[in-house]
Amino acid sequence: MQAAAAVHRPHLLAPSPLRGRTRRPSTVRMALREDGPSVAIVGATGAVGQEFLRVIAARDFPYRSLRLLASERSAGKRIAFEDREYTVEDLAAPGVFEGIDIALFSAGGGVSRTHARTAVASGAVVVDNSSAFRMDPEVPLVIPEVNPEAMANVRLGKGAIVANPNCSTIICLMAVTPLHRQAKVLRMVVSTYQAASGAGAAAMEELKLQTQEVLAGKAPTCNIFSQQYAFNIFSHNAPILENGYNEEEMKLVKETRKIWNDKDVRVTATCIRVPTMRAHGESVNLQFEKPLDEDTAREILRAAPGLTISDDRASNRFPTPLEVSDKDEVSVGRIRQDLSQEDNRGLDIFVCGDQIRKGAALNAVQIAEMLLK
Amino acid sequence: MQAAAAVHRPHLLAPSPLRGRTRRPSTVRMALREDGPSVAIVGATGAVGQEFLRVIAARDFPYRSLRLLASERSAGKRIAFEDREYTVEDLAAPGVFEGIDIALFSAGGGVSRTHARTAVASGAVVVDNSSAFRMDPEVPLVIPEVNPEAMANVRLGKGAIVANPNCSTIICLMAVTPLHRQAKVLRMVVSTYQAASGAGAAAMEELKLQTQEVLAGKAPTCNIFSQQYAFNIFSHNAPILENGYNEEEMKLVKETRKIWNDKDVRVTATCIRVPTMRAHGESVNLQFEKPLDEDTAREILRAAPGLTISDDRASNRFPTPLEVSDKDEVSVGRIRQDLSQEDNRGLDIFVCGDQIRKGAALNAVQIAEMLLK
Ligand SMILES: NC(=O)c1ccc[n+]([C@@H]2O[C@H](COP(=O)([O-])OP(=O)(O)OC[C@H]3O[C@@H](n4cnc5c(N)ncnc54)[C@H](OP(=O)(O)O)[C@@H]3O)[C@@H](O)[C@H]2O)c1
Ligand SMILES: NC(=O)c1ccc[n+]([C@@H]2O[C@H](COP(=O)([O-])OP(=O)(O)OC[C@H]3O[C@@H](n4cnc5c(N)ncnc54)[C@H](OP(=O)(O)O)[C@@H]3O)[C@@H](O)[C@H]2O)c1
Repeated sequence: MQAAAAVHRPHLLAPSPLRGRTRRPSTVRMALREDGPSVAIVGATGAVGQEFLRVIAARDFPYRSLRLLASERSAGKRIAFEDREYTVEDLAAPGVFEGIDIALFSAGGGVSRTHARTAVASGAVVVDNSSAFRMDPEVPLVIPEVNPEAMANVRLGKGAIVANPNCSTIICLMAVTPLHRQAKVLRMVVSTYQAASGAGAAAMEELKLQTQEVLAGKAPTCNIFSQQYAFNIFSHNAPILENGYNEEEMKLVKETRKIWNDKDVRVTATCIRVPTMRAHGESVNLQFEKPLDEDTAREILRAAPGLTISDDRASNRFPTPLEVSDKDEVSVGRIRQDLSQEDNRGLDIFVCGDQIRKGAALNAVQIAEMLLK
Repeated sequence: MQAAAAVHRPHLLAPSPLRGRTRRPSTVRMALREDGPSVAIVGATGAVGQEFLRVIAARDFPYRSLRLLASERSAGKRIAFEDREYTVEDLAAPGVFEGIDIALFSAGGGVSRTHARTAVASGAVVVDNSSAFRMDPEVPLVIPEVNPEAMANVRLGKGAIVANPNCSTIICLMAVTPLHRQAKVLRMVVSTYQAASGAGAAAMEELKLQTQEVLAGKAPTCNIFSQQYAFNIFSHNAPILENGYNEEEMKLVKETRKIWNDKDVRVTATCIRVPTMRAHGESVNLQFEKPLDEDTAREILRAAPGLTISDDRASNRFPTPLEVSDKDEVSVGRIRQDLSQEDNRGLDIFVCGDQIRKGAALNAVQIAEMLLK
């Protein structure tokens, strides 16, 4: 209960695209790299597509040429990036993947199903952000910090698909995998707190608009979601399956098994949307085969790549979506022995991660970086 | 993904006090009841206190006289209620509990600790909304639908304290107890989605103000909470204990044991604030001793008092805080067999309840009604 208004900066939306939000703003690259791959971004005008550009700039990802693709709606649009101007091209035009080495797809499952094989046929490695190929046994499903070995056989120049896991899965497993390696997770119960951004750029706009409308006493506009989102939460809008789980929840269940290469791990999940803009939270309860005490868990997490620990009990500071927005790292906190399990065989943790960044674009660019090694 | 703006009514804040939001608005009572108890409301100007008045009116709770108490800050304020005007009195004034039969306390733990015994000494039955006496072995902790027997020995005219459980506990156990009676809960994992109202009327105002500020690009005012709440979520602001749980979480752990009179039930909880106004959501994972299939569970819940089922998989409609706001019933949905447990020994459910209503004022008034029987 502190009064500390002055130190807080407001934060609502993702930064506007390409406003120089790179990690090293002083090193703007003035030229393309002749030895880099030629890259296509499919869905370049979307929330994830725009983040691809930011991440490529921030990480100095080398590229010989860049092609920005979207639907015919956006074809012809100009996008400035790293001192050049690009014209968005229509994905449906013939030959768009000719000469492309790496195609980063983020335009929905339908688009991936229709166009990814074409890109592969012309020799590109597709890094796909949709769910289209994730459970395909031929397609590696990769979080670089977790299972890089799964894509050992993928080579630049030989067409292939690598799938990016669902954002909730990535964020969860970034924190849980190091603990799993130590004590083996037998069962995991996940409840999510998912942001608007998971449903794309238009969903973020709708949350903002609805909030303005509700504050003004007006009826909220419901185009993307079928109900009021402002000042409300609701069960994730993914379709519900026969077993009562929604598709988002089943992704956590199935993708975890595939990524860990562990058919026996038992996972249940409840996925809920909350009125935040661009980062997800997840409350994760873990049951282990071997004992794992809280202090050891904290040490393991501290040493793990891509994680930051936010676990300050004295000042009640733990991961929040706001604090991880625009950050590469997944933040983990509320690390504690689960009282409801015996012999140090359980932990509760709370994680937050920027789901457009590590949950989508960053993870995909990291996969692309592995292809260059 | 429907466009249905016109059918949605905006809903943000609790209704202004006493704007006739009774269930039977046509039966405004013109006179007090000579055979009713004399009632005092401690904390009458607060979020829960104002809800007490609404609930009393809505349920036609009989009273011979009514005394509204608060701190000296509010003493002298006028409050119109059921065709009379009351003057708020200073709780610290001498003799305020003289002649009082039932005192409904909701002014914080400190106030209850200081003043409840005085009310008891003058013969009142105190129904206390704070956490001050909940774990006192002499004090019954009661949800009328769950454990009315716990207050069997409390009689009007004989001073006593009855404690109202924490709002998260009430909302959770309203749905879980009927299942527990059938199949015995061995272990329960709860993740909460808690509204601003849980921190009082000023917290709701702060969330509204912050949201306006953030939308306008201004720094959010942080007086009640120590960080930005608008478009954010954070770990519940209750103090963190030695074991890493916060006090709110430990209430769920301990109160469940006391209310069920079951020392062995294992509970873990992660309590998170989300930017909603007045109703909590809870994701609850259950492990049972006996098998319990989903259909039987649904039937049991349908027959249970004080619950409504919102579980429409086809149209993706499940409980939301908005839909339960200003409602007596706790809403339960997402009822499904937990995939991660065998032999039908697990269920996942999602519940929402108005935590000022059933989580506080309604439950307390129901306790008071039991005293009149
Ligand atoms: N949002 C996330 O955090 C997230 C995380 C992981 C994975 N993903 C996946 O990434 C994909 C896109 O998500 P998003 O959030 O970026 O969505 P978004 O903001 O709605 O953007 C969609 C993008 O796809 C393009 N597109 C749509 N239909 C197309 C078509 N028929 N042909 C070519 N391009 C088309 C759009 O181009 P126009 O401008 O022409 O419409 C736009 O560039 C989805 O598969 C999603 O599941 C998203
Ligand atoms: N909010 C909930 O949903 C909820 C649920 C369950 C239990 N509770 C419990 O109910 C209590 C009140 O919650 P709330 O949400 O109604 O808080 P609130 O909106 O902040 O109201 C607090 C009330 O307590 C009064 N008060 C404060 N200090 C006092 C003092 N020293 N002497 C006399 N009266 C005093 C205030 O009177 P003034 O106008 O004079 O300041 C006001 O009426 C707390 O113990 C809370 O834990 C709340």
